[in-house]
Amino acid sequence: MIKDRIRMASLHEKIMSPEAAASFIEDNMTVATSGFTPSGYPKAIPLAMAKRAEKEPFGITLITGASVGDELDGALTKTGVLKRRFPYQTNNASRDGINNGSVCYQDMHLSHVTQFIEYGFFGNIDVAIIEAIAITEEGNIIPTTSVGISPQAVKEADMVLIEINTTQSMALEGVHDIYMTEKPPFRKPIPIVGPGDRIGTPYIECDPKKIVGIVECDITDKVRPLGPIDEDSKKISAHIIEFLKEEVKAGRLPENLLPLQSGVGSVANAVLGGLVDSEFENLTCYTEVIQDSMFDLIDAGKVKVASGTSFTPSEEGLKRLNDNMEHYAKYCVLRPMEISNHPEVARRLGVIALNTAIEFDIYGHVNSTNIMGSRMMNGIGGSGDFTRNAYLSFFTTVSTAKNGDISSIVPFVSHVDHTEHDVEVFVTEQGLADVRGLCPRERARKIIENCAHPDFKEMLFDYLNRAEQGKYSHEPHLMDESHSWHHRFLTTGSMKVK
Amino acid sequence: MIKDRIRMASLHEKIMSPEAAASFIEDNMTVATSGFTPSGYPKAIPLAMAKRAEKEPFGITLITGASVGDELDGALTKTGVLKRRFPYQTNNASRDGINNGSVCYQDMHLSHVTQFIEYGFFGNIDVAIIEAIAITEEGNIIPTTSVGISPQAVKEADMVLIEINTTQSMALEGVHDIYMTEKPPFRKPIPIVGPGDRIGTPYIECDPKKIVGIVECDITDKVRPLGPIDEDSKKISAHIIEFLKEEVKAGRLPENLLPLQSGVGSVANAVLGGLVDSEFENLTCYTEVIQDSMFDLIDAGKVKVASGTSFTPSEEGLKRLNDNMEHYAKYCVLRPMEISNHPEVARRLGVIALNTAIEFDIYGHVNSTNIMGSRMMNGIGGSGDFTRNAYLSFFTTVSTAKNGDISSIVPFVSHVDHTEHDVEVFVTEQGLADVRGLCPRERARKIIENCAHPDFKEMLFDYLNRAEQGKYSHEPHLMDESHSWHHRFLTTGSMKVK
Repeated sequence: MIKDRIRMASLHEKIMSPEAAASFIEDNMTVATSGFTPSGYPKAIPLAMAKRAEKEPFGITLITGASVGDELDGALTKTGVLKRRFPYQTNNASRDGINNGSVCYQDMHLSHVTQFIEYGFFGNIDVAIIEAIAITEEGNIIPTTSVGISPQAVKEADMVLIEINTTQSMALEGVHDIYMTEKPPFRKPIPIVGPGDRIGTPYIECDPKKIVGIVECDITDKVRPLGPIDEDSKKISAHIIEFLKEEVKAGRLPENLLPLQSGVGSVANAVLGGLVDSEFENLTCYTEVIQDSMFDLIDAGKVKVASGTSFTPSEEGLKRLNDNMEHYAKYCVLRPMEISNHPEVARRLGVIALNTAIEFDIYGHVNSTNIMGSRMMNGIGGSGDFTRNAYLSFFTTVSTAKNGDISSIVPFVSHVDHTEHDVEVFVTEQGLADVRGLCPRERARKIIENCAHPDFKEMLFDYLNRAEQGKYSHEPHLMDESHSWHHRFLTTGSMKVK
Repeated sequence: MIKDRIRMASLHEKIMSPEAAASFIEDNMTVATSGFTPSGYPKAIPLAMAKRAEKEPFGITLITGASVGDELDGALTKTGVLKRRFPYQTNNASRDGINNGSVCYQDMHLSHVTQFIEYGFFGNIDVAIIEAIAITEEGNIIPTTSVGISPQAVKEADMVLIEINTTQSMALEGVHDIYMTEKPPFRKPIPIVGPGDRIGTPYIECDPKKIVGIVECDITDKVRPLGPIDEDSKKISAHIIEFLKEEVKAGRLPENLLPLQSGVGSVANAVLGGLVDSEFENLTCYTEVIQDSMFDLIDAGKVKVASGTSFTPSEEGLKRLNDNMEHYAKYCVLRPMEISNHPEVARRLGVIALNTAIEFDIYGHVNSTNIMGSRMMNGIGGSGDFTRNAYLSFFTTVSTAKNGDISSIVPFVSHVDHTEHDVEVFVTEQGLADVRGLCPRERARKIIENCAHPDFKEMLFDYLNRAEQGKYSHEPHLMDESHSWHHRFLTTGSMKVK
């Protein structure tokens, strides 16, 4: 069966066990793999690596597109193989490793990763491990449910290992559009002018001589659950849709809006899902991840084209996708993450960027990554690629966390991932603050008034009012209290003053 | 004489006094002007507006390319005309107004400004005031020493006022390359593939019916002095040049590097100036501002082409430029700031971005704008446009300020303009820290070791070591001490513990 999927017959002799494939990976190597938001990542070879490490300890640097499943991040962290990690993760074990200091993690803009590979900034790429549905007659690789960094990994790696995943639908063939840029000074314009434009090949070019092993795998993606669409998410979605309607009415947006980008996770999924019942038609998406609500939008006839770098469904969504792959493939394009997240394309198309914050502050700085300043959650992902280059950029969050003990709106965020220069609209279940054209003092009043939870409004105004008594009124802060809310939470368990 | 410069004869009847031209500007209007880094801004009409305001108070919103001279920002602030200001300034009076709360200021990425104008996010643009060397036979405008936002201002404004500045060299004709993008969803790739590519017209297109007044002006630009190249700047420059040589040797940069971008001001000027005596040849620049050291590089045969949006010389540099305009014009292209600062072009060309920080922190976040968190200095300018999209991004600063009482390397910057995701190399006179591929804890040790002043190293390591005792080790912080250095300076006059 696996031989049917390896159309270049001379490669059949490279079929081997996961253990044999894993033996190519030596101590201190840098390994780049497929996979983006637990989708399309290799599983059998990493599991064999982890097994080997139990007897024979070794360590690697791992570069992926984005988050990958427990067979990769989890297994390699638990066995001590994962020493250094780029650029994004969501796995419990790897997160623990990062936060206890056993894993060195650099959290990067996803659009920067592929050029770091090509510029040599990560050093040599020793091995690429790519999940594929098939290999073409010429030895080129047809990816599965994500593309991520795979084209650059294959191009730059000394050796390529391939996992043919027999659970992945062959109807994925043709959904990918693989295009790579040259390095400066030879780089040319990326010829995408609409979200559905196809500019590349349906496979990843690969010199078959670099393929040192091919492994069969039938483990399915360990996708992450999407939370139910709760009342807060519905309110956030409603605020955004109402605002977009007003922008159309004011002539600042076309009637079918502009290509939507929506981040990973339940709130982002819910926000997009809210459009199913809206009046908007002929929508397009130019985003990273195609989540469950996109299938709803396609089925409702609302979305005509969705471009991303991965399918990122829930478990139910994965079944729905696999059962109807031919149908959904007609509407979808999967691109390398260099292209899905490219500043050039995001700005040209004028995406409407919808991303989720851990917290934002009264002046409009956003924390997307580190809880209470020090504790890595997942990473910035593509939120910066889209936010900075959007036509309009939104950040959403529920106004409180931890049963109301944390305010998601604070005087000064404990980590800054997006600055006051980058975001136009802030949204919580309480309301929406459009801060275009406002100076910091005006922004602060609007964000507190419209977005903060009533339990914290008075405290926030108190901070602002006292800060304004200082000598400098541009962006008034109290340097001895700027992070006091976080400190209070860390010491008392609540940002509230008892 | 001014009639010679107005080649469309029917426009001669629009010649009027500055006072008459100023009368078109009414209370609450939004005015967009030429000018970028005290270069090429209107002078006579703003002075007439200020004079009128002494008898008849009124207020405006002012949008420029970047900083403008005292005849505009200064005169309008002192007379209370300036109510709201976008996106960058360096004038003493306007800075005071911003910091005392009388002027509302939004500090923006310069590449965002023109699209805010075109998207309608600033509201209606009532009047454009453009400094020009001449008007063509068709009524099109030939700018002076900067382009900035002028093309979009002329396109979107209801009325256009022109100041023909007779002190500006006619040899500027042909140096400009005016190209504008369409709004999404109609935007196309910008066809620049090399820093010197010309893709537009040598004039700003203008419907002559919109020109309501033309004024003669013979006031020269109030350019800013460039400090002498001091020992610290020479050391910073030497560290960077040494590093670039190593990158070439390692095969990570071409022998003639990649297009250089260098920020505004004395340190940036000195850093670029250091290249005059280096081994590098056939350099190119794709930047905002063409400062004095660029003339040195051109005269030394080191730079073949320099692209920017303005000539930004010192007083001596201005004389040198004017005396040799035909010579320098051969090497230079002045573009709209949308194009000079465009993320698409900066990333495609792979600029080497060299910008100056107020302070940076141990984890690599940069403050470019607000001193001690609250006090606006100038603004972010184009530093974010280039930094985020560079091939390699550097930030430089002298390691201390205020006679050694301020450390420019701190535990947590008091304002974040560039994040840890954006910058690869940090440089002070003490040394250089290349943080590519390092996790936050590793970055911190390298930045402290290589860049901090010896007076503050022990204090910085003490903060880091104590922070690492906490529960979470990804990016360890002490939330009750993160801004304590700034607070100590504000209360005691020194960051040092007495």
